[in-house]
Amino acid sequence: MSNKQLDPYTAKAENDNLSPQEKIEGLHSIVKNVKTGMLTTRSASGQLHARAMAPAGPVDPNQVTLVFIANRASAKFDEIEHDAHVNVSFYDESTTNWASYAGIAKIIQDKNKIAKHWSSATAAWFGDLGDGVHKGDQNDPRVAVIEVIPDEIRYWYATRGKVGQAVDVAVGAVTGRTAAPGELRTITKSEIQLVQGLTSK
Amino acid sequence: MSNKQLDPYTAKAENDNLSPQEKIEGLHSIVKNVKTGMLTTRSASGQLHARAMAPAGPVDPNQVTLVFIANRASAKFDEIEHDAHVNVSFYDESTTNWASYAGIAKIIQDKNKIAKHWSSATAAWFGDLGDGVHKGDQNDPRVAVIEVIPDEIRYWYATRGKVGQAVDVAVGAVTGRTAAPGELRTITKSEIQLVQGLTSK
Repeated sequence: MSNKQLDPYTAKAENDNLSPQEKIEGLHSIVKNVKTGMLTTRSASGQLHARAMAPAGPVDPNQVTLVFIANRASAKFDEIEHDAHVNVSFYDESTTNWASYAGIAKIIQDKNKIAKHWSSATAAWFGDLGDGVHKGDQNDPRVAVIEVIPDEIRYWYATRGKVGQAVDVAVGAVTGRTAAPGELRTITKSEIQLVQGLTSK
Repeated sequence: MSNKQLDPYTAKAENDNLSPQEKIEGLHSIVKNVKTGMLTTRSASGQLHARAMAPAGPVDPNQVTLVFIANRASAKFDEIEHDAHVNVSFYDESTTNWASYAGIAKIIQDKNKIAKHWSSATAAWFGDLGDGVHKGDQNDPRVAVIEVIPDEIRYWYATRGKVGQAVDVAVGAVTGRTAAPGELRTITKSEIQLVQGLTSK
């Protein structure tokens, strides 16, 4: 059983002393820098599969959902239809920052929604199949939006550079004090609902 | 339903023309470069949670398992005990390479196994609680090994640099030809079993 007293690293790193808006700003700074996340879905046999996906823009300042343009014919849709619980994680090597969105994936094929997030480069991932239907454009029936509506977002925001972190860890190892060269921040379900009330229509 | 004919990107990118050893070499080059992966576990309510974890060394040349040293008191153990299916993903911003290990997590508290993978820096994540038992050393009862035994490993290996990839995508968008500026490689369950026969004792 998890036990906070015995896990001083997590306890020390947690920072709940920020407004939802400040937490979203920190989150967006990570996602903007990494650009590409790993979308994890669950197969019928229980296996967890991940693949790289770059969220589509534009992103509103208070937005906590993630939007992906994807090919309906790819295997991830089978997995999402079987279990809508997904995770999208971002890891930034340069800072060690990371973010984890635990949420529900919704599959949307609404033309307006696709148009809002379509970019010309997206076409390259579909290809024109030459049958007059699958043209790799916005009207191609393969094109779908995967919207991830988070239940909880958790992220690590390094408050020290890589060298400072290494020093923290080294000092921790010698002194027995727990290293925590950054902050663990959680955007809770109720904060997400609050923000979604602001941004959805 | 997924359909390979309608997903030319995946079909074009797949390369099955490599030996297991060549595939493992490519995989290791990614993991070595990124160093830190995202471990995704599943909660009792079905949510998928991810957090950054750096695999412990040393790594044998044919090794396909991942080993992590972790604190038994952290929440991920509750999730692994509930459902042992996990994913570990690696994303390398600098090359766009990524890897996904879909596997089963085993929790091990064997002292020899811990000793094999322990490094002095690890102590900093535990801290000395000052009770003479939880000292943050190798013998601390909180210290555990999470070994991830993969069912399938899938990874993307970029065969062109970032600029070349951008060109591929741009040309694809204009011509309707599908972009595939790299390879998707799969290390299958039977290949994993073959390799594990070589490396485990």
